[in-house]
Amino acid sequence: MLTVKDLDFKKGNGLLPAIAQDYKTGEVLMLAYMNEEAWEATLKTGKVHYWSRSRNKLWLKGETSGHVQILKEARVDCDQDTLLLKVEQLGGAACHKGYRSCFHYKVEGEELKIDGELVFDPKEIYGK
Amino acid sequence: MLTVKDLDFKKGNGLLPAIAQDYKTGEVLMLAYMNEEAWEATLKTGKVHYWSRSRNKLWLKGETSGHVQILKEARVDCDQDTLLLKVEQLGGAACHKGYRSCFHYKVEGEELKIDGELVFDPKEIYGK
Repeated sequence: MLTVKDLDFKKGNGLLPAIAQDYKTGEVLMLAYMNEEAWEATLKTGKVHYWSRSRNKLWLKGETSGHVQILKEARVDCDQDTLLLKVEQLGGAACHKGYRSCFHYKVEGEELKIDGELVFDPKEIYGK
Repeated sequence: MLTVKDLDFKKGNGLLPAIAQDYKTGEVLMLAYMNEEAWEATLKTGKVHYWSRSRNKLWLKGETSGHVQILKEARVDCDQDTLLLKVEQLGGAACHKGYRSCFHYKVEGEELKIDGELVFDPKEIYGK
């Protein structure tokens, strides 16, 4: 029987991709990475933690903006090397640019066109 | 203006994660990786191509099983380092183990419990 300890963190040098999906609408909100510490903190607290590759530290999603992700359901793929998190996105926006979803560029021909709901002004939240 | 040439393949050593999502139901089906060649082949043919990390080759999804993914919409995230593909999954199953979605393990307490729709018998499709 597989358990939450059986994730294959070795394949990605200690990191697994984790997809966050709105638990009600099914909208895919973002993808970030988890190490073992982030995975354990997420399961323990019920709030999604990632590993920030740019800041090289454990990252409670929403720690600055307040836009925390409440874990409603966690799923693991057939190879135990990818996570799917069904979340309640507090504040209504997952993207640090203020959009509901990070996937706010739509491919139209050769172009990437902005196509997404802007929920907040990043300047007001992050002061920059 | 951003274009389809502006994906940041460098960050992941030439590979980007690509999430495949059912274009009608919103179900997340799988995550695999694309290099530049796979991305271009996907846009050109309208059939999803990945880069197989285990076989180290370009991989037309469904080339063996016939379970091709028809690209309905492609989206790119805020950092241009992750793809979201809305697809029509021919054959009804994305997972090589015969499940509709690769994310057929649900975390329940400490356990990973199988929770998914089995669409085909892998032995019949792959002969193994």
